[in-house]
Amino acid sequence: MSSAKRLKNQQAREQRSSMVGFRTAQQTRLGEAHMKLIGAYSSPYTRRVAITLRHYGIAHDIKKVTPFGDTKAWLRRINPVAKIPILELDDGEFVTESQVILDYLDTLAPKGLRLTPSTGPQRRKIQNLCGIASAAVDKLVSVLYEFHFRPIDKVYKPWTKMCDEQTADGFKWLNAQLNDRRFFGSQITQAEITAAVFWQFAVEKRARFCERMNCSQLQALSEELEQTEPFLATMPEGPIRDGITLGTRD
Amino acid sequence: MSSAKRLKNQQAREQRSSMVGFRTAQQTRLGEAHMKLIGAYSSPYTRRVAITLRHYGIAHDIKKVTPFGDTKAWLRRINPVAKIPILELDDGEFVTESQVILDYLDTLAPKGLRLTPSTGPQRRKIQNLCGIASAAVDKLVSVLYEFHFRPIDKVYKPWTKMCDEQTADGFKWLNAQLNDRRFFGSQITQAEITAAVFWQFAVEKRARFCERMNCSQLQALSEELEQTEPFLATMPEGPIRDGITLGTRD
Repeated sequence: MSSAKRLKNQQAREQRSSMVGFRTAQQTRLGEAHMKLIGAYSSPYTRRVAITLRHYGIAHDIKKVTPFGDTKAWLRRINPVAKIPILELDDGEFVTESQVILDYLDTLAPKGLRLTPSTGPQRRKIQNLCGIASAAVDKLVSVLYEFHFRPIDKVYKPWTKMCDEQTADGFKWLNAQLNDRRFFGSQITQAEITAAVFWQFAVEKRARFCERMNCSQLQALSEELEQTEPFLATMPEGPIRDGITLGTRD
Repeated sequence: MSSAKRLKNQQAREQRSSMVGFRTAQQTRLGEAHMKLIGAYSSPYTRRVAITLRHYGIAHDIKKVTPFGDTKAWLRRINPVAKIPILELDDGEFVTESQVILDYLDTLAPKGLRLTPSTGPQRRKIQNLCGIASAAVDKLVSVLYEFHFRPIDKVYKPWTKMCDEQTADGFKWLNAQLNDRRFFGSQITQAEITAAVFWQFAVEKRARFCERMNCSQLQALSEELEQTEPFLATMPEGPIRDGITLGTRD
C-alpha cells in the first residue's frame, strides 16, 4: 500500500477500530516501559505479539531480525534455538516463544483490554483455539520449508500432502467455530487476533490452497481486523531477505 | 524393567519422591474429578501432562492413542490437527496442546504443589525454559520424521544438520541453566519435569547424539526424576505400532 493511501485510510480506520472494540496504542500508551521486540512482521508469531503490544498500548521498539542468513548467528546468542519472536525486557531479560510472551503481556494489559482472561473456561477455550491455529500454521510452514530449503528432488509429496491436510483441517475447524466473525459474543480476544494473523499469513503464502478451504468466516474476520491500526502498523515486510521468498506456491 | 524389579523399587522410590519434594498421586488424590488423557507416553508431550496429573493427584483415565495408522482418523474427529495429547474434561470438552493443558491443570493443583506459579517472574522463567525445551525436542522430532516417514533418497542432510544444531544448542543451553539438577533453588517446577522428560526422550531416540552434547546436569536430573513414582508410572510404551519405530539412528 502506498503511504498516500495509508494516510487516507487513517480516519476511517480509527473509527472502525473503536467500532470493533479494538482500541489503538495511542489511546492507551503506558508510562515509560520500553521493551524491545525482536523478530519480523513476516513471521505470524512475531506479528501477533506486535499486535498485542499495540492493542495494550505498550511502548516498545522493534528490532527487525529473521532466523535466516547473517542474522541467525546473532539470534542464537539470545535464543539458543534461534527462533523469533523474542521480547527483551527493560532489565535485559529475554523471553522467547510467542505464547509465553503473550502470557506475560496479558499481565500488563490495561483494565478491560485483556485479550485472554487470567482464569476460567474462557481462558482455556481461547488458548485451545490459539493452539489449533498454531498447529495449522506450523504445518503450513513445514511445507513452505520443504519447497524452499531443499532441492526439488528431495521434496517428498506424501509428506507435504499430510501436512496440507492438517493445515486445512485446522483452519476449517477454526472457521466452523466462528459466528459472525467472533468465537464468543462480540468481543475481540487473542483467539480472533491469532486466527486472523495466521489466516492472513496462509493466504499470502498459498492463496489458491486457502481458497479451496472455503473459510469465509476466517476471511471476513481477517478483512475486518486488517483494517485496524494494530494490524495496519504491522504489515509483513514482504520477501524476508536476498532471494529467499517463502510461499506463493499453490 | 521387569515387574519384579519395579515392585522391588517401590519403597526406595517413595522415600526418594518425598526427598525431592515430589509427592505421589496416592498422597494427594482429588475427589471425583475424572478426566481422560488421550495420547501415549511415548510422546514426551503426553508424558509431561501425565506426570503433572500424577504430581497433582488428579484421578484420570488414559486412552492410549498415537497420531499414526488407524487411530489417526479417530483422533482427527476430536482434534482437527490430529495431535496428542488431548485432555477430555468431565463435561466432554476437549483441550489440546500440552502447554494449554498444563495451564489448566495448574489451576487444579493442591496448595503447595503448583509446578508453575500463577504470576510473577518465576512463571515467565519457567515457561521460557519449557519453551526452549519444546523447540529443542520439536527439531529432534523433525529429524526423526525425516528418517522414518520418507524414503532415504528424499532425506536432505543440510536440513537435518540444521535441526540437529538447534536441538543441541537448546539442550546445551538448558544444561547450562541447571545448578545441582535444579533451575531455581531446590524445588521441582514444570521446567525440571519438562526438561527431564524431553531429555529422556532424546536419549532414548538418539543416544550417541545426546552423549556428544555432554549435558551432565540434564542427565543427572533425568536419572533422579525417572526414579520417582510419576515418571515410573508413565514409562514410554516403546515402539509405537506395527513396524514404526522412531529413533535409534545416531
